[in-house]
Amino acid sequence: MSSVGIERDHSSPAGLIIRQKEPTNLEMPFDQLGSYLTPTELFYIRSHFQAPQIDTSNYRLRIDGAVTRPLALSYEELRKMPSETRIATLECAGNGRVFLVPQVRGAQWELGAVGNAEWRGVPLRALLERAGLEDAACEVVFEGADHGVPAEEPKPPLPISYARSLSCAKALQPEVLIAYEMNGRDLSRDHGFPVRAIVPGHYGMASVKWLTRIQAVRQPFQGYWQTSDYGYWDFLDGKPVRRPLTEMKLKSAIARPSVYETLLPDRMYTVFGAAWAGETVAAEIAVSTDGGKTWAEAQFLDPAHRYAWRRWKFDWPTPKEPGRYTLLARAKDADGAAQPDEHDWNYGTYVISHLLPIEVIVEDLACPET
Amino acid sequence: MSSVGIERDHSSPAGLIIRQKEPTNLEMPFDQLGSYLTPTELFYIRSHFQAPQIDTSNYRLRIDGAVTRPLALSYEELRKMPSETRIATLECAGNGRVFLVPQVRGAQWELGAVGNAEWRGVPLRALLERAGLEDAACEVVFEGADHGVPAEEPKPPLPISYARSLSCAKALQPEVLIAYEMNGRDLSRDHGFPVRAIVPGHYGMASVKWLTRIQAVRQPFQGYWQTSDYGYWDFLDGKPVRRPLTEMKLKSAIARPSVYETLLPDRMYTVFGAAWAGETVAAEIAVSTDGGKTWAEAQFLDPAHRYAWRRWKFDWPTPKEPGRYTLLARAKDADGAAQPDEHDWNYGTYVISHLLPIEVIVEDLACPET
Repeated sequence: MSSVGIERDHSSPAGLIIRQKEPTNLEMPFDQLGSYLTPTELFYIRSHFQAPQIDTSNYRLRIDGAVTRPLALSYEELRKMPSETRIATLECAGNGRVFLVPQVRGAQWELGAVGNAEWRGVPLRALLERAGLEDAACEVVFEGADHGVPAEEPKPPLPISYARSLSCAKALQPEVLIAYEMNGRDLSRDHGFPVRAIVPGHYGMASVKWLTRIQAVRQPFQGYWQTSDYGYWDFLDGKPVRRPLTEMKLKSAIARPSVYETLLPDRMYTVFGAAWAGETVAAEIAVSTDGGKTWAEAQFLDPAHRYAWRRWKFDWPTPKEPGRYTLLARAKDADGAAQPDEHDWNYGTYVISHLLPIEVIVEDLACPET
Repeated sequence: MSSVGIERDHSSPAGLIIRQKEPTNLEMPFDQLGSYLTPTELFYIRSHFQAPQIDTSNYRLRIDGAVTRPLALSYEELRKMPSETRIATLECAGNGRVFLVPQVRGAQWELGAVGNAEWRGVPLRALLERAGLEDAACEVVFEGADHGVPAEEPKPPLPISYARSLSCAKALQPEVLIAYEMNGRDLSRDHGFPVRAIVPGHYGMASVKWLTRIQAVRQPFQGYWQTSDYGYWDFLDGKPVRRPLTEMKLKSAIARPSVYETLLPDRMYTVFGAAWAGETVAAEIAVSTDGGKTWAEAQFLDPAHRYAWRRWKFDWPTPKEPGRYTLLARAKDADGAAQPDEHDWNYGTYVISHLLPIEVIVEDLACPET
């Protein structure tokens, strides 16, 4: 991993890192981690196709399929319904991919395809109740207005709309929103204007942007982004079976220092980062400055709220001895389960939640006395 | 398509065409199509991994999962059960791949990854009755003794056994056999010795070789060879969904002449081929010798038996005019549905059942009089 030669998006004041220009895929420089809520202009952008331009006067959100009262809501109608806010961390399922050895294909995300924001919208549950979700429904499919031919095989030959399903069990939980605001303002086009799903606890691919349809289905949906992409190998009675990615795994990441940063010897340096999880919370955080031989407890800076990250810090008296040091952070959840040491390749190029080494150089930059 | 530079397997007297040496993938030179039953030494071989060597004294066929009386049958016990024979055409789902434009990856099968043989074994239905298939079962998974890491993404990182599922509806049909003989002799190692599944009407990938386990399951099996490989895109309410390949599509193929063969002008040439289908039969066959502009009826040489091919012939008075001529064969099923003109790319590199052109040269090879 290296930040050498990265290209910044100078149209954004925050200088997001460009991973792909078209469609727009931008990463937060994770060493800029600061506030609990990530400013919208620093929030990573993950797009599969060109961002659609949607006119709210024509916009309709269809809710249909296995429901007794299909709906087609205008933007105004949606905004008139009782709304709620949720703070939720979204992480791209491929965040940290650049750490994988051997190198793999796909956007080479470093650490910053993650952010924490406040979202406002209508709980999906309220919409499904209004539409009369049938008992026979097992999932709802979110469909976006973005479309194209996907990149990887096996793929359908013609353009398709981005679509992902959610189990009814999760869809009916109060945290899931059909959102139209991010951090107190209307969604920006790149973040899904006018309406997107927000699925707290799941990787970002579940929070479908430019949402135009919610379709209840009676059979599990086997769409492209459930099977070919955003899938993993689970084991059923010893045999691998393909399943869609859903819940985020427990993870912690070091924002500062960044990789190959040079630190002065024999000073107090505050290591700073964040930790998050899916349906659980990061309950403990520890840091190692010797590549994992020894560990010390770090301090959380934020309370434990499900679905939101917790920033943490660790005051490190840097060594007197110059050299290379490898920093690691390791979170544990409320049940004491810790992040794994190694990547699980059953997840392919996704779910990079193992311990990610940050190597730094301790060196006295002052001129030697002569 | 061209046969130039093909490599033959000289260890087999019939000279099968080598598509891949390891694992063994051999094709019948389709211009050698002769008898109704394809001789075993001419029958194509499709392997995913190295052929396992199985000692029948240790062999057990496990039947378990959603059954009330799990079984583990020895080879002798299986052979003592009442047996039946079935004539069935097996076709590799990728047969004809070399005809696809643009060219695609995968073994470049020409026309000969298809054959018709007589199989002997125990009806699967009898085994499932003996094991007490539960009502809750929806599929049975056939598992082979062959294993390895599959070639194409998305794939699991560690070796897995070849496995494919079959709906219970099909598994309980009388035609499905757990077979141990092919054309009156014990299965050869390359054809699945000692025991394989035979699923008449389905592409060859369903007829799992080196069968060691039949597991009844209560949920559709999402294994590698159902999703990543041997899958296709179906459309549900406009959205593509991934489904496993099953039934063979109606198809006809010209065995003689072969591509770029030179024929004499103004003679009677007998065009010869075969036609087959999945759960229906080839009921009509027509031939065009002008690239599809005009069609004439050809004659079947075999009766219509479900699951077995029908050879056919067409007597063509070759043109007086030298030149290039494009031959096509087109089958219709009992409902009058015909083979399509073009490949359906929702099947990716499989199900090549459209009209396949055979271009020939009509030329007088005699020395011109001077």
